Amino acid sequence: MSTDELVQHILQKQSFLCVGLDPDPEKIPKILRQEEDPVFSFNKAIIDATHPYCVAYKPNTAFYEALGLKGWQAFERTIRYLKSHYPGHFVIADAKRGDIGHTATRYARAFFEELECDALTVAPYMGKDSVEPFLAFPNRHTILLALTSNEGAFDFQTKKCGGKALYEMVLETSRHYAHAENLMYVTGATKASYLRGIRKIIPDSFLLVPGIGAQGGDLKMVCKYGMTRQVGLLVNSSRGILYASAGPDFAQAAAGAAKEIQAVMAVELEARTKS
Amino acid sequence: MSTDELVQHILQKQSFLCVGLDPDPEKIPKILRQEEDPVFSFNKAIIDATHPYCVAYKPNTAFYEALGLKGWQAFERTIRYLKSHYPGHFVIADAKRGDIGHTATRYARAFFEELECDALTVAPYMGKDSVEPFLAFPNRHTILLALTSNEGAFDFQTKKCGGKALYEMVLETSRHYAHAENLMYVTGATKASYLRGIRKIIPDSFLLVPGIGAQGGDLKMVCKYGMTRQVGLLVNSSRGILYASAGPDFAQAAAGAAKEIQAVMAVELEARTKS
Repeated sequence: MSTDELVQHILQKQSFLCVGLDPDPEKIPKILRQEEDPVFSFNKAIIDATHPYCVAYKPNTAFYEALGLKGWQAFERTIRYLKSHYPGHFVIADAKRGDIGHTATRYARAFFEELECDALTVAPYMGKDSVEPFLAFPNRHTILLALTSNEGAFDFQTKKCGGKALYEMVLETSRHYAHAENLMYVTGATKASYLRGIRKIIPDSFLLVPGIGAQGGDLKMVCKYGMTRQVGLLVNSSRGILYASAGPDFAQAAAGAAKEIQAVMAVELEARTKS
Repeated sequence: MSTDELVQHILQKQSFLCVGLDPDPEKIPKILRQEEDPVFSFNKAIIDATHPYCVAYKPNTAFYEALGLKGWQAFERTIRYLKSHYPGHFVIADAKRGDIGHTATRYARAFFEELECDALTVAPYMGKDSVEPFLAFPNRHTILLALTSNEGAFDFQTKKCGGKALYEMVLETSRHYAHAENLMYVTGATKASYLRGIRKIIPDSFLLVPGIGAQGGDLKMVCKYGMTRQVGLLVNSSRGILYASAGPDFAQAAAGAAKEIQAVMAVELEARTKS
């Protein structure tokens, strides 16, 4: 999917919500636990209920890999279900990969070609030749970790390296990679005020913003500092939507939680992209 | 496996060789391509041929994940074959993972408990709460990326952050993580002379050194600057061993290549650990 198509979908839906598909086996509603593939059944129900209110889905591969072969199967089924039933939605494999040259190309092929994901999260630590192989795929997006929403982000990401923070150096350096037009960035909502500085370095790039809800980020602050005329934001929520209810009404509750966020997003879009 | 057991195995075998199991479908000998699971058949033949000359195996998960479900299955079969047939060998899942808290714990369980891997490579960018969940498992080892052997390592890893290089900051900071005794580090052989400085920060930690052979690292230089009285080194070779021959004698050729490296290692061990 091209960035333009993503923006059109956002404006049409009045939503830049990304639903994180992080199914925790212990939190999957009891009613689904007897199914043949409870993880996929859970995802399917969540997707069917929430798709009117979001434009993207982001399964975190860790949740699937932790379940071994079965989990990998559920991951693939989920992606294929999304691509066949809701082809307008932007699918992000949250894999946080990072490996050199030929190995990176293998990952890129697996996620972008075999599974047809629209985007993949990638870690920057290994530098250029661990990122560029992903960028080479047209209309596929590499979402580089810049400033994450966890406490450990302060260990290295915010440390000063030659007058600027490491995450700022990541933004500046990666802008010059080949096919940098396919770059997006992870910038955590728990650090919304940092977005002002981030926008000085990358005024137009799309930001994937996790940390709304469970991790305490504030949606309005994120919009204030991060939104551009072309939106430039995907805001992710996982637990707040997936586990809005543990009962048989879990899908309906998830839809309600997603709709609530979408309503706030519609107001922000109205205020900030139409002025 | 405890570090002491690893050291004993190294001294007994007179080898600190780690064989990288990175099976490239295009390079797997023709003779195996009709097998039901060519990747596993290839790995099995390589393992059976090389196990007398090495103490560790390191499958890089990217090569398996790129093949989808089939690849994941081959990965699991390879690990289980190693654990059941050669339980003395140290098994490293080269996954370069990095994710926060509960997600990291999921990865740790998948690799350390379900698959019984002895070690896992982890990326440092997200900091403490993306590393400590792995360190909590006793006699399981977290191998943190410090200084990698690729060109992109110079993008961020060697950049000065407050008077020292980022990779030095990673070494110093991670030393203070809870259960840091379970830490090892990836330090590339293509930058062997850096090892002198690295040993000043972490005099005793085990280093996993990739980049011997195909990537141009020099084994003797690595030993000179990196070896400790308790060895402290695992040196990895992948392509030079796996693809020593493309013919039906591939396993024999792999054994020959591994034996050649082991012979150099025996000389280095004699010279540096017995003085």
